[in-house]
Amino acid sequence: MEHEIELDVRYYETDGQGVVHHANYFQYFELARVEMLRAMGHRYADLERDGIFLVVHSITCKYHRPAKFGDRIRIRTKVVRATMARIEHRYEVFIGLQLIAEATSTIACVDRQGTIRRMPDFLVNE
Amino acid sequence: MEHEIELDVRYYETDGQGVVHHANYFQYFELARVEMLRAMGHRYADLERDGIFLVVHSITCKYHRPAKFGDRIRIRTKVVRATMARIEHRYEVFIGLQLIAEATSTIACVDRQGTIRRMPDFLVNE
Amino acid sequence: MEHEIELDVRYYETDGQGVVHHANYFQYFELARVEMLRAMGHRYADLERDGIFLVVHSITCKYHRPAKFGDRIRIRTKVVRATMARIEHRYEVFIGLQLIAEATSTIACVDRQGTIRRMPDFLVNE
Amino acid sequence: MEHEIELDVRYYETDGQGVVHHANYFQYFELARVEMLRAMGHRYADLERDGIFLVVHSITCKYHRPAKFGDRIRIRTKVVRATMARIEHRYEVFIGLQLIAEATSTIACVDRQGTIRRMPDFLVNE
Repeated sequence: MEHEIELDVRYYETDGQGVVHHANYFQYFELARVEMLRAMGHRYADLERDGIFLVVHSITCKYHRPAKFGDRIRIRTKVVRATMARIEHRYEVFIGLQLIAEATSTIACVDRQGTIRRMPDFLVNE
Repeated sequence: MEHEIELDVRYYETDGQGVVHHANYFQYFELARVEMLRAMGHRYADLERDGIFLVVHSITCKYHRPAKFGDRIRIRTKVVRATMARIEHRYEVFIGLQLIAEATSTIACVDRQGTIRRMPDFLVNE
Repeated sequence: MEHEIELDVRYYETDGQGVVHHANYFQYFELARVEMLRAMGHRYADLERDGIFLVVHSITCKYHRPAKFGDRIRIRTKVVRATMARIEHRYEVFIGLQLIAEATSTIACVDRQGTIRRMPDFLVNE
Repeated sequence: MEHEIELDVRYYETDGQGVVHHANYFQYFELARVEMLRAMGHRYADLERDGIFLVVHSITCKYHRPAKFGDRIRIRTKVVRATMARIEHRYEVFIGLQLIAEATSTIACVDRQGTIRRMPDFLVNE
């Protein structure tokens, strides 16, 4: 399973070095997961309404090149493993054809009280 | 009633122009209100736990000079009016003795469902 | 002159109350100005490359209703006054047909050193 | 070499789940590095003025427990390796005595044009 989004760097996402602040890539990856879910027919807002909260358990990112305001970036997201306990994603970030960053994340599922619960079936089977 | 906080500009708060992004001043003002509340003996986290949510109804800011990473800024906050319906604050932002921004805000009070409610007494009388 | 953008609320733009943090509206308005400029045939990144920096001189916002993750918001931006010194914008934010916020801003123009300069002609005449 | 900072979670750092958004930890770690540098007698703003820009090359984080508004967190930062090319940090985040997150980062050094350069001596030897 693989999904792509494109987005324009927003001005306030850049920092004093004139490039996208490294922490903001994790906001992009969250957006990529939400959009991937939407492409599968699920709205994350509905999941939370049903008491299904996805939380980030771990995350990594390697930065190869900076992105600037004015750049259009493309994020390719893959599910590399999905079990009842966790879903692992892999992200590749491009400007044009150039790979500028690579990342991974592991997501777990909790209920409204924050207690770990099984991942819903439709996230694991699809 | 008047209260002051000092804070160092954080790197990620600056933008591509190398200065604090104008939207981030509103985060500073929120912090100023929280700290003023704390100085009055109340923790905002406790208020929310008790179903008292303070929401911003309107806000204004004039920017006279930019602030950069490395700057230490001082925010002087005053309550200019407090009624059962709303509290109005006024903020002055300084670097050293130089006034770099001035702002106002009006805060209302809502319950857990987002319905307007009376301001708690201790916020109006103090 | 009037321009509209639509955008989906991003998860990280919400706060502990589950609604878009009030400071983040100013990021939306910046985006609205950048997109309006683009619709006029100008890329803001190019302006900065040419030493034309637009800075916010003052800003106001009134919040009528909160916006949540899952909401799609529409921002209508108008230039209400444009002189060699300043450009004034007015913003209306909608969810569907409901007006949820109204705002104004005044923008000035500075050079690379931060010194006030005349607004470029193409921003005033168009 | 080891350094600790304490900070209060700011309201706007929380997200719709009422906890600190995972991306914001990387802002905390940046702050921890800046403060560690300051404890060593160097201001990062001065480094940039001298053409020494520190950039994040890679970063990882594992989240064990969430942090909420009202929490005071403590970040212990260690330099685990420092060469002319890169500095590796390790971070432990605590609420009280409980470890809530663990992270690592690798920092490189670039000049004003973004070209990789040797790390300044005082960052490697100290």
